[in-house]
Amino acid sequence: MNTSPTEPAPPGTDRSGPSALGSAPENRRRTRADRARQVAEVLRRQIASGAFASGLLPNERVLIADFAVSRNTVREALGVLRDEGVIERRQGVGTVIVRRPYEHTLERLTGLAETLRSHGEVVNQVRVADVVRPPGEVARKLHVPDGGRVVYIERLRLLDGVPLSLDLTYLAADIGEPLLAADLAGRDLFGLIEQSTGGRLGSASVTVHAVSGDPHTCELLGIPAGSALFTVERLTRLPDGRPVDLEYLRIRGDRLAFRAELVRAAAPENGAVRQAGTER
Amino acid sequence: MNTSPTEPAPPGTDRSGPSALGSAPENRRRTRADRARQVAEVLRRQIASGAFASGLLPNERVLIADFAVSRNTVREALGVLRDEGVIERRQGVGTVIVRRPYEHTLERLTGLAETLRSHGEVVNQVRVADVVRPPGEVARKLHVPDGGRVVYIERLRLLDGVPLSLDLTYLAADIGEPLLAADLAGRDLFGLIEQSTGGRLGSASVTVHAVSGDPHTCELLGIPAGSALFTVERLTRLPDGRPVDLEYLRIRGDRLAFRAELVRAAAPENGAVRQAGTER
Repeated sequence: MNTSPTEPAPPGTDRSGPSALGSAPENRRRTRADRARQVAEVLRRQIASGAFASGLLPNERVLIADFAVSRNTVREALGVLRDEGVIERRQGVGTVIVRRPYEHTLERLTGLAETLRSHGEVVNQVRVADVVRPPGEVARKLHVPDGGRVVYIERLRLLDGVPLSLDLTYLAADIGEPLLAADLAGRDLFGLIEQSTGGRLGSASVTVHAVSGDPHTCELLGIPAGSALFTVERLTRLPDGRPVDLEYLRIRGDRLAFRAELVRAAAPENGAVRQAGTER
Repeated sequence: MNTSPTEPAPPGTDRSGPSALGSAPENRRRTRADRARQVAEVLRRQIASGAFASGLLPNERVLIADFAVSRNTVREALGVLRDEGVIERRQGVGTVIVRRPYEHTLERLTGLAETLRSHGEVVNQVRVADVVRPPGEVARKLHVPDGGRVVYIERLRLLDGVPLSLDLTYLAADIGEPLLAADLAGRDLFGLIEQSTGGRLGSASVTVHAVSGDPHTCELLGIPAGSALFTVERLTRLPDGRPVDLEYLRIRGDRLAFRAELVRAAAPENGAVRQAGTER
């Protein structure tokens, strides 16, 4: 399966540039869709990271030369990004970037509005703010005793008037009840909790899934049914380790990306693997 | 918009338990779909974290009592998870968990096979392994001079015979060329690079998007067109900071979740916001 780098491309291999992507003999079965995906992946990240300040993609000729692929491959790649809602073809203008996602860090614990405030105004439509009996799983995670109550807050969050996420939040009662009278429409819960408790929050465990949104959620978020969403569970603790804030966030995939800086562990990899293996 | 926790639910409010989720007056416009979403979010995370060891969900009666919602709401919640491919109703058996995602950490830098080896066998179908001229963006990120070459490796990765991800990898030539003769089908690239260079990798910048998969990618991954995928860009550096490995991963949303432990920054939040604002 390995390919000698010096092996010449065979005649008849579809290559349109000086060194088309993946053109060696073993790769002959590669289709245009394979090459288009390669182009689309790079372009998606370029768009998201703000590479095209004009808001326009380079024209086809430039992309053909840069990626060393055929015109049809470039068009298919642009089709992938168009279907994702990233770009749009506009008559007489060119290929326009419709939207690029904001990046939210997964390194420090920050509220959405904290991160995004500089990009636009975050407004929350409060759909529920109430005291409820929690489901068993929520009670366990928040260490609520049998028969105890929690505060449930549900908010649709908009950035510059466009829906960004639907946030379902369960708060320990002593933490949440003072917040029922607070500015839930204008503030992050993190900031409100810290103001109310007079101290910083401590840490959080976060899990991120990717799902196709159900019709009802997508309608609320203003996107076609089945659009890709992040669903995030975030359990936040006080500095003493007490869990107080359990959130289930559904975030539009086209409006947010997560970013992290990772460091390679110094330990030998076999040890790390064995440790990870004990987790489930 | 704030709701007094002591306010009684008005007559006619749809509540089927001792304290249905979100039942206060302001919340009267809540539909069954809203309540079903609340149930589905909690169940999805319970399933993913291995709460139901039998592989079966509790029966409807148990769920109705636990979530304090109606039978129809439970059924709608299960419908959401069924549409996501998480569960399946089996005649005479009950509601079966079809698949739960493996969790991949976003704290340390680890290869997929390193993390998942204990859960099953990772096998890579090598689709391309070749020396190519990189697109401009790839060359910039890998610090490849004009006219320079990189190694391109494309692999479909399977865990226990089921597709997990499609990985597109660009490697600096000096790092990648020795790998062309290595066991690309059986090993993580991280391990191969470290074996070849004789040292550990250093750090990586990771960005995670959620997208609806294009038909061709979904076909390769064995899922219906439009299924939710993670697309991950990961740029990995040697300990001296030199970027050597640029990857674009497309990962099935139903097979993997990302996990991270976050710590709240000690700095006052206004400072943090202003800093973030300079990033774009």
